[in-house]
Amino acid sequence: MFNSFGNILRVSTFGESHGVAIGGVIDGFPAGVTIDFDAVQKELDRRKPGQSKIVTQRKEPDTVEFLSGIFDGKSTGMPIGFVIKNTNQKSKDYNHNTNVYRPSHADYTYDKKYGIRDYRGGGRTSARETANWVVAGALAKQLLAHISINAFTSSVGDIFIDKPYQDLDFSKTESNIVRCPDEKSAEQMIDKIKEIRKAGDTIGGTITCVAQNVPVGLGEPIFHKLHAELGKAMLSINAVKGFEFGSGFCGAKMQGSEHNDIFNPDGTTQSNLSGGIQGGISNGMDIYFRVAFKPVATIMQNQQTINSEGEATEIQGKGRHDPCVVPRAVPVVEALTALVLADFYLMDKTRKVL
Amino acid sequence: MFNSFGNILRVSTFGESHGVAIGGVIDGFPAGVTIDFDAVQKELDRRKPGQSKIVTQRKEPDTVEFLSGIFDGKSTGMPIGFVIKNTNQKSKDYNHNTNVYRPSHADYTYDKKYGIRDYRGGGRTSARETANWVVAGALAKQLLAHISINAFTSSVGDIFIDKPYQDLDFSKTESNIVRCPDEKSAEQMIDKIKEIRKAGDTIGGTITCVAQNVPVGLGEPIFHKLHAELGKAMLSINAVKGFEFGSGFCGAKMQGSEHNDIFNPDGTTQSNLSGGIQGGISNGMDIYFRVAFKPVATIMQNQQTINSEGEATEIQGKGRHDPCVVPRAVPVVEALTALVLADFYLMDKTRKVL
Amino acid sequence: MFNSFGNILRVSTFGESHGVAIGGVIDGFPAGVTIDFDAVQKELDRRKPGQSKIVTQRKEPDTVEFLSGIFDGKSTGMPIGFVIKNTNQKSKDYNHNTNVYRPSHADYTYDKKYGIRDYRGGGRTSARETANWVVAGALAKQLLAHISINAFTSSVGDIFIDKPYQDLDFSKTESNIVRCPDEKSAEQMIDKIKEIRKAGDTIGGTITCVAQNVPVGLGEPIFHKLHAELGKAMLSINAVKGFEFGSGFCGAKMQGSEHNDIFNPDGTTQSNLSGGIQGGISNGMDIYFRVAFKPVATIMQNQQTINSEGEATEIQGKGRHDPCVVPRAVPVVEALTALVLADFYLMDKTRKVL
Amino acid sequence: MFNSFGNILRVSTFGESHGVAIGGVIDGFPAGVTIDFDAVQKELDRRKPGQSKIVTQRKEPDTVEFLSGIFDGKSTGMPIGFVIKNTNQKSKDYNHNTNVYRPSHADYTYDKKYGIRDYRGGGRTSARETANWVVAGALAKQLLAHISINAFTSSVGDIFIDKPYQDLDFSKTESNIVRCPDEKSAEQMIDKIKEIRKAGDTIGGTITCVAQNVPVGLGEPIFHKLHAELGKAMLSINAVKGFEFGSGFCGAKMQGSEHNDIFNPDGTTQSNLSGGIQGGISNGMDIYFRVAFKPVATIMQNQQTINSEGEATEIQGKGRHDPCVVPRAVPVVEALTALVLADFYLMDKTRKVL
Repeated sequence: MFNSFGNILRVSTFGESHGVAIGGVIDGFPAGVTIDFDAVQKELDRRKPGQSKIVTQRKEPDTVEFLSGIFDGKSTGMPIGFVIKNTNQKSKDYNHNTNVYRPSHADYTYDKKYGIRDYRGGGRTSARETANWVVAGALAKQLLAHISINAFTSSVGDIFIDKPYQDLDFSKTESNIVRCPDEKSAEQMIDKIKEIRKAGDTIGGTITCVAQNVPVGLGEPIFHKLHAELGKAMLSINAVKGFEFGSGFCGAKMQGSEHNDIFNPDGTTQSNLSGGIQGGISNGMDIYFRVAFKPVATIMQNQQTINSEGEATEIQGKGRHDPCVVPRAVPVVEALTALVLADFYLMDKTRKVL
Repeated sequence: MFNSFGNILRVSTFGESHGVAIGGVIDGFPAGVTIDFDAVQKELDRRKPGQSKIVTQRKEPDTVEFLSGIFDGKSTGMPIGFVIKNTNQKSKDYNHNTNVYRPSHADYTYDKKYGIRDYRGGGRTSARETANWVVAGALAKQLLAHISINAFTSSVGDIFIDKPYQDLDFSKTESNIVRCPDEKSAEQMIDKIKEIRKAGDTIGGTITCVAQNVPVGLGEPIFHKLHAELGKAMLSINAVKGFEFGSGFCGAKMQGSEHNDIFNPDGTTQSNLSGGIQGGISNGMDIYFRVAFKPVATIMQNQQTINSEGEATEIQGKGRHDPCVVPRAVPVVEALTALVLADFYLMDKTRKVL
Repeated sequence: MFNSFGNILRVSTFGESHGVAIGGVIDGFPAGVTIDFDAVQKELDRRKPGQSKIVTQRKEPDTVEFLSGIFDGKSTGMPIGFVIKNTNQKSKDYNHNTNVYRPSHADYTYDKKYGIRDYRGGGRTSARETANWVVAGALAKQLLAHISINAFTSSVGDIFIDKPYQDLDFSKTESNIVRCPDEKSAEQMIDKIKEIRKAGDTIGGTITCVAQNVPVGLGEPIFHKLHAELGKAMLSINAVKGFEFGSGFCGAKMQGSEHNDIFNPDGTTQSNLSGGIQGGISNGMDIYFRVAFKPVATIMQNQQTINSEGEATEIQGKGRHDPCVVPRAVPVVEALTALVLADFYLMDKTRKVL
Repeated sequence: MFNSFGNILRVSTFGESHGVAIGGVIDGFPAGVTIDFDAVQKELDRRKPGQSKIVTQRKEPDTVEFLSGIFDGKSTGMPIGFVIKNTNQKSKDYNHNTNVYRPSHADYTYDKKYGIRDYRGGGRTSARETANWVVAGALAKQLLAHISINAFTSSVGDIFIDKPYQDLDFSKTESNIVRCPDEKSAEQMIDKIKEIRKAGDTIGGTITCVAQNVPVGLGEPIFHKLHAELGKAMLSINAVKGFEFGSGFCGAKMQGSEHNDIFNPDGTTQSNLSGGIQGGISNGMDIYFRVAFKPVATIMQNQQTINSEGEATEIQGKGRHDPCVVPRAVPVVEALTALVLADFYLMDKTRKVL
């Protein structure tokens, strides 16, 4: 219940950033899907630390090992177990923080809730967990080969792409280290992150994600609306503070006569302020949404804080951390999107008896 | 799976707007809670149609009948069954729309997904379902008597309250029909809605919700983060397009050095951009979030559309509909917040063995 | 979680024997199934009290009202809400037992667990709940129209049918009031129950159930084995003490060389000691199992017992109770079998991608 | 859904007998429990192959590695990931059977259901999976340190212990290789199994399990009755054909006046035909049940069978298999019992608000 995601396609994960390994069980993956192992590893490589100058300089190969559920290159319908070993466990980096609560981290809440806390690198709360999601999401993408899912960095700080997503060429997202398909914005974002890093600070940003060729009918009407599950998924990513789809918060300022999407005879719509979802169910138009990430809480500056005894202390800014989480979060957003869509895709098979 | 909400405290609902009744089963409600029936009905009355000039003029008494799970005025630990009869089923109002797809409604997606559709008033997709949630949420509030949950209208169109929530007096929310605790803004909002209604149009808005006195430790670290479940709940409400908590989308423009919440010696924090949640778990500070509602899709203007044969047709603007959904959605936001918190409150009892 | 049954097709029920009504929500029922209401009521009539001389003489019409999820005679894919009103609530019959613990009933355990108990007629623990299951099971049967499910009374006390089920004509099950398709045994069973009732006592028995034309492939390999879910379902029925399928407890005395079912070229097997299930998955052969019911705990004799203060007291044998639960449990066994099979039928649709 | 067990304490497993490893995720295990690693390994050793003359002579060290969720020797409340490597993967033993369906195995049903099958040693259907359960169950036992759970071999073929469990000394169960606490019966059982093995055959048997010091109140009233979940758990074990608790199938022959358990003033009962469970909830008396195992399907004799093309073929009896599964299944029965009780123990914490 606590560490599982999905209904039919259910991923149950485990692992702390400085334990032996992270990993999980992917259950409900249908039989007969040919697995492209390189494609999985490629997704992990997009997320891994040390990949560029503007992300953390930790080194982790992040190699996934599949332990079950795949035979002769195909899924068997049995659960897919996997592990990613932690090779770069510099726990001693963290020894000075054993009873110190880092500001805007989960140290305090974990300690209060569980009465015990793995203080090494955030333990379970580390964004290292998202590598598990990328593995599962990469498999989900292979199940949904007909759907294309493209996430990209749409803002860093106050630098925004000033074009609608329709004017972007998603094939350029991977052409720069900030993962922004608009080259001019990308340059500005990279400069901004370098400047922020030099100042020992961090900065927030947003990711936009577009899912295309989604069939009509994915989603459920009341409590498992497609956008509600997408929102829950995105809000599960470390540092996320907001989610909007279609017209989003702007839609709240509009009038019905301008917001309604008028149908074409073939069931497509002339505008798509609905964001490809009506009544919680995909309508075949592009699904698009935006996710807000706060600035990383670990900064390279000294901060006043308290320890578990309630004593004032100072925490020093050191270690190897991301000045901006957004570039590495792009494949995570895609992975969770794929998992949500795959779950609904399987669920939908049960809703009509032919 | 499809029509249930919650894990330990699980609400399973049913019902269409123009069927015999709506209702549900509230399972996992603990034994021994004294039930205040009037308080439940009072919440329903806040949501019901016809309550003021700026909401739909349909008349529904929305009287809840409890069928089980309560004995001698106390919860017994058994499932609480309830129904709300539909008394105002003017189905004939809808007969002209049997095979017409209303723009930005769920008619099209339902028809494609299920191959059959209850076309009377939206059927299951009607926001009438939210009356079920208000019943369950009212009971959850009684379980969490120590927590206070206050939602209010924070914007209508481009009229926003220009104060932080700390400067508002929540006791004034019910003093006006738009449910805005800031009197000046309330007046402007009411005027705006009247103007919009007169034009046969509709308008969007936002609701802000604040939960206070939430104990430290509610929430789970990975897939059931407190804010992720709150987000999912809010995105389940009809017409919602976005959710943000704490610093939200603004936080995505900020730097870590300004965004971090510095601790006081007692574990409280000096600022609260975290929105009362760190690492998915409540930290004892106020939880606050904002929900964006699009304008209601049913407008009192004629619109071009198609029918199920893909033929162009015109839909006429008539019937009794809300020009702005926000005032009636305020108790719905509170109800779902209470359900999410109550679920985590019960879940938390299992996480530590004393 | 507590009052729900099934995974894809999930039934959530509520209700006490002497409350206003019992009922439930049937979720996940696919769209497009034509509903035969008479068939549902007919199943309820097979379970209802007062139907013959050898069952309780309470009178309850047990009329089901469907509140949602069915439109123009077809299922819509939306949750099917239903209620059965309690019309014969002679609570005063039970007033003398308010704090007395009846032997081998659940009075004591409920009181200890919940700290509160609806003492009227067993409250939630009453077998009245099984009427809910019969409603849901009757719909599941309609979903699985190609599968035939036949349960029957196979023993009462020490009177057993002395034939294999293959030699029985299931069309005769309803021809006598004990629901035994073997006429000679039926007579003996009826006489036995009449004799027991006259003595103010009760007696146990067994029900055998046979499901035929089940397609190959229903069931899951590890924790949701078809027979494990059937067993759980049967053990959920009041008074059940045991479950065996295929060779059952006799199989535990056998050797592999005599127990193995040898294949025919078409995949059928020459013998069927497996009971139609291999590795938790149906193999297309008949599924058959046997369920043991203890004698009803309420007897028409005075018994020594205690009250909630731990004081010795005497409970008097009066009221209207079943001398043998088995005849009325036959439709309940069929209903739960149908629900389990329907759930697996829907689940199976998600296991292979074509 | 498919490979998970439990509600609050949920175990999700993976792995095939001849893959890289088996393992799983134990989620919902509460924080703060001191973990005895040796005790876990000791349970695995009771289950492992090669431990005595009367079990399979395969050699597997079955060493468990914990990957997460335990820190400084205590559970942290985070999911506990674990793996057991497969070191003895003689897949070539199985190459001759790639498309042959072994009688009374799951080869046929898997192939039909999934369209693909890991034919090496049964793949996922192998009883090797039960090693995962023993790991999880050993942890559950540590959570329930106050409860004692004792399973033992109560029959092999037609050799039964002829004493009630109350007359047995459970400390003697491990004193012989068949795990029967009655020395005389144990000798006879061992002789019987040796004789059967010499004949190249296999034989069935039963295991009885007794749980003592279970607190009053574990279990749920309707669909999660304690005995229903125990039954489901037992029926999940490979080769199990039946389950009975308390009076079981014998109870079906009895009368209410002899079957009812009369209370003592302290709430205990004079007899315990209820088997420690009333209305699905533990009453504080001993919980006892019996599980029937069929003879192992793999025999050392040649058998006629078919292949996936439906052609007649002969399967040869070779390999290293158990002549009787019961001795090695004793720790498996205990493990699942512990898991069920632990799940209900945690669930019960949510049922009453103090």
